[in-house]
Amino acid sequence: MNFENFEKKIGYSFKNKQLLSHALSHTSYINEHKKAKHESNERLEFLGDAIVDMVVSDYLYKNYKTEPEGVLTKWRACVVCEASFARVAKQLGYGDYLLLGRGEEATGGRTRSSVLADAFEAVIAAMYLDSDINTVSKWIISKLEGEIKLAVKGRTQKDYKTLLQEHVQHGERGKVAYKIISENGPDHAKTFCVDVFVDEKRIASGVGTSKKDAEQAAASEALKLLTKNK
Amino acid sequence: MNFENFEKKIGYSFKNKQLLSHALSHTSYINEHKKAKHESNERLEFLGDAIVDMVVSDYLYKNYKTEPEGVLTKWRACVVCEASFARVAKQLGYGDYLLLGRGEEATGGRTRSSVLADAFEAVIAAMYLDSDINTVSKWIISKLEGEIKLAVKGRTQKDYKTLLQEHVQHGERGKVAYKIISENGPDHAKTFCVDVFVDEKRIASGVGTSKKDAEQAAASEALKLLTKNK
Repeated sequence: MNFENFEKKIGYSFKNKQLLSHALSHTSYINEHKKAKHESNERLEFLGDAIVDMVVSDYLYKNYKTEPEGVLTKWRACVVCEASFARVAKQLGYGDYLLLGRGEEATGGRTRSSVLADAFEAVIAAMYLDSDINTVSKWIISKLEGEIKLAVKGRTQKDYKTLLQEHVQHGERGKVAYKIISENGPDHAKTFCVDVFVDEKRIASGVGTSKKDAEQAAASEALKLLTKNK
Repeated sequence: MNFENFEKKIGYSFKNKQLLSHALSHTSYINEHKKAKHESNERLEFLGDAIVDMVVSDYLYKNYKTEPEGVLTKWRACVVCEASFARVAKQLGYGDYLLLGRGEEATGGRTRSSVLADAFEAVIAAMYLDSDINTVSKWIISKLEGEIKLAVKGRTQKDYKTLLQEHVQHGERGKVAYKIISENGPDHAKTFCVDVFVDEKRIASGVGTSKKDAEQAAASEALKLLTKNK
């Protein structure tokens, strides 16, 4: 594949073109092309994920000097996530340049959020290895600035249930459901205990004086667990 | 407090001393000293966590070129975690220099793993802001090299249950328990379903053809969820 158009679209020209094709190679492609000169993009994705997390954290830290850590963490979780990466990768036309195996191709891999988000991370790592951290930082911020603004402006208004829903992503990776586990106490002073499930797997629980509050608490806890890095 | 001895111990001298005292200021201290010139170290900890994650990822990526992404992720989870940071902070004598409130002091804050690990991250962010990414990268690797070697050599032999136990840390933050939820099928072809709990909160489930296998699967899943960043 000729990647020149892709390089134009993303606004970065690779010194080492091999790195770019490596970053766009899905496992399914490598499995079918045993003689490929490189491995799949999974290791690059591992590195890219950490780079983008650091760059976005740095940006938030320096640009929102009065926001407490909890707010920055919430914003970061909105930006450094599959949904956000997939949106940007889609806008930049990553789908047209992915190297996929036949099965992945046939089942819609080119438009799959997880595949696009992984490629987004892998290309970031490739760019970092091809240049340096400053170059890739500028690139990341230029591409994610819209997502950061969205997180800061819009989504801070949103509640934890919405944030959790966005985090786990609609469709293939995550149906969120809430279930009341118990109601305790007399009518005028009830507490509710709610479990939250993602794809039928229980992630967290929450307690509140109303069903709604308990659900918010459970969603907040789940979000914390799912985005916790240590 | 005079931080000169601390700077000698960690082998870095701050241009901006204020940044260092900021990094060592626990919330409990700031709450008692409303006139302190800076906030608590929580925002720095947010940034430091992302920096150390990136630096360790970069190191693992470049030094273990043949290891698949799954192995690198497992190793990173061993290194970038409270237990590991607390150990290094303890060795470097962080406990003696923490600025704590009276309550935190009285309840053993100086030796608490979570407090030490948070200060470790905060000092890294402060060092980064005081210098640059290359300086702090070298510092991080020099201090964490022992932990990285441990992860690569020793702990890869260990199973997921051990890794999970180490990840959630003994004592204050995490008692891990397993519970058989169901046994299905005839005696010669049973499958077991096991839930894993951290501090009595269910984190994940696992299925296997033996109780042991099911527990390993549940621990592996929990580890993935608890270290997942997106």
